[in-house]
Amino acid sequence: MTIDIIPTIADIFEAHARIKPYIHRTPVLCSSSINSFSGCSIFFKCENFQKVGAFKFRGACNSVLSLSEDEAKFGVATHSSGNHAAALALAARIRGLKAYIVMPENSSEIKKLAVKSYGAIITYCEPTLEARESTLKKVVSETGASFIHPYNYSGTICGQATAAVELIQEVPGLDIIMAPVGGGGLLSGTAIAAKALQPGIRIIAAEPENADDAYRSFLSGKLMPSINPQTIADGLLTSLGTLTFRIILDYVDEIVTVSETSIINAMRMIWERMKIIIEPSSAVPLAAILSHKLEPAGKKIGIIISGGNVDLGNLPF
Amino acid sequence: MTIDIIPTIADIFEAHARIKPYIHRTPVLCSSSINSFSGCSIFFKCENFQKVGAFKFRGACNSVLSLSEDEAKFGVATHSSGNHAAALALAARIRGLKAYIVMPENSSEIKKLAVKSYGAIITYCEPTLEARESTLKKVVSETGASFIHPYNYSGTICGQATAAVELIQEVPGLDIIMAPVGGGGLLSGTAIAAKALQPGIRIIAAEPENADDAYRSFLSGKLMPSINPQTIADGLLTSLGTLTFRIILDYVDEIVTVSETSIINAMRMIWERMKIIIEPSSAVPLAAILSHKLEPAGKKIGIIISGGNVDLGNLPF
Repeated sequence: MTIDIIPTIADIFEAHARIKPYIHRTPVLCSSSINSFSGCSIFFKCENFQKVGAFKFRGACNSVLSLSEDEAKFGVATHSSGNHAAALALAARIRGLKAYIVMPENSSEIKKLAVKSYGAIITYCEPTLEARESTLKKVVSETGASFIHPYNYSGTICGQATAAVELIQEVPGLDIIMAPVGGGGLLSGTAIAAKALQPGIRIIAAEPENADDAYRSFLSGKLMPSINPQTIADGLLTSLGTLTFRIILDYVDEIVTVSETSIINAMRMIWERMKIIIEPSSAVPLAAILSHKLEPAGKKIGIIISGGNVDLGNLPF
Repeated sequence: MTIDIIPTIADIFEAHARIKPYIHRTPVLCSSSINSFSGCSIFFKCENFQKVGAFKFRGACNSVLSLSEDEAKFGVATHSSGNHAAALALAARIRGLKAYIVMPENSSEIKKLAVKSYGAIITYCEPTLEARESTLKKVVSETGASFIHPYNYSGTICGQATAAVELIQEVPGLDIIMAPVGGGGLLSGTAIAAKALQPGIRIIAAEPENADDAYRSFLSGKLMPSINPQTIADGLLTSLGTLTFRIILDYVDEIVTVSETSIINAMRMIWERMKIIIEPSSAVPLAAILSHKLEPAGKKIGIIISGGNVDLGNLPF
């Protein structure tokens, strides 16, 4: 599978069949009090309960299991400070492959530990994109491992799309699906799957104002990466890739942005009302609804809760 | 139903049928990482997802729905600073009754708001047991409302027992059921239900060392209330009642105590690994397992997670 191919719904169904034995079928939860606050019916697809605590495991698992014997024989590699690193490490272990992970040396201890616990080989680098990419290049050339991109890669996108497939199968008649957008793997997969399975559905992405490259790129039609963005939604610091941007231009209906305060308030509301732990990135779509960035009245809205990995020692409330 | 009657499994099944339309059937969750840490298979019955965020709704709902027309006609009353207050307020609203709640004036704002939001009439009092009881007496004599005791009451105990009924029906072959113990309503109901449904099962209660009246009373055979106990497990500050103590003496196999640090560590482990929000009281049974207060090796253990109402602005980590 090359990096440039826009996946089809058939690819996504294939991915789902491939990863089903290894992923959790995560629950779809509702909250009557959040529904009254927001004036709509929200169905939360809870990928915070996914393995490694995030949807990222779906994409990593599909990418690793899709490799040919030949592509897989020297293992897999990536650079990531967060959920994709752990997801790839676990996916590689499932297939019995080596995983080489390039991590910025300032990654959180808990994330380093998680990656190690899955048996991956970590190479630390300076915390810059240049250092991450050059270190990865070196690791790949020394080991022959296959690079698995965290989002700008068909195999990854197909895997991420399977959360929306499960949501739509479980909750018929959704008017809108919302997902947060960082690199765009989750959003682009969600959009392809949802438009294929339910053509009239609207796809609305939500993004922090402080990391609004997808919003600006979508409006201008040109890829406009963020430079050094700062947001509490640490899963959304990445900018769109070439492939995810093309898909988003074609399949997404709208991108809205939200303030940092609204993200924290929405996160707190989900923690308090639903008794589940979600990471700040996952609160961004609800923040958009509660800040009246769309017109949700009476609508049935699906939201992909992207993950639940937070540092409990450093909470915003 | 008088205060002195020890409920039977038939009473508990009746309670279950009565409250089923109004309660959530809460999920039973497992965590493979917590199982590896603890060396046993733990099945968490998640009453943190129950209405009002705690098992207390089961008991309050059963008590309110069990009242005769005559007993119900002037409404219901109780004193409580916490979950029972909200649970009774909601249960009363479901039956269309007035609820009179005596709350200590220093109760948390969020709990006052919750009780108000269910339409209850609150009377504030000094934060002492004497003031609570005398104020309640006054309210009851002025209104004619029926007093619903938070734990020392057959109707309440039967309702709390239904969580264990669901757990045992869903997970056959448990070796042990654990519950935290405060006033003993949850523990005594759990014990009666579990011993009836699966006679060989062991019932082990867990209690904070800092509020160990049940432990001391169980060992001595005499009711020995705690005086002004201080523990982070704020749901377990109450001492056993006369009825719950009789049941516990007859039906419970063992009571173990745990340190404050072990409660915080177990709570954090559940938050981090399971991505669910539980209150400190709910972490007490896992704290006992992780502190080697029982021999869990290879056992199948059910734990009732009592609730998820925590003040996010005041976390212990």
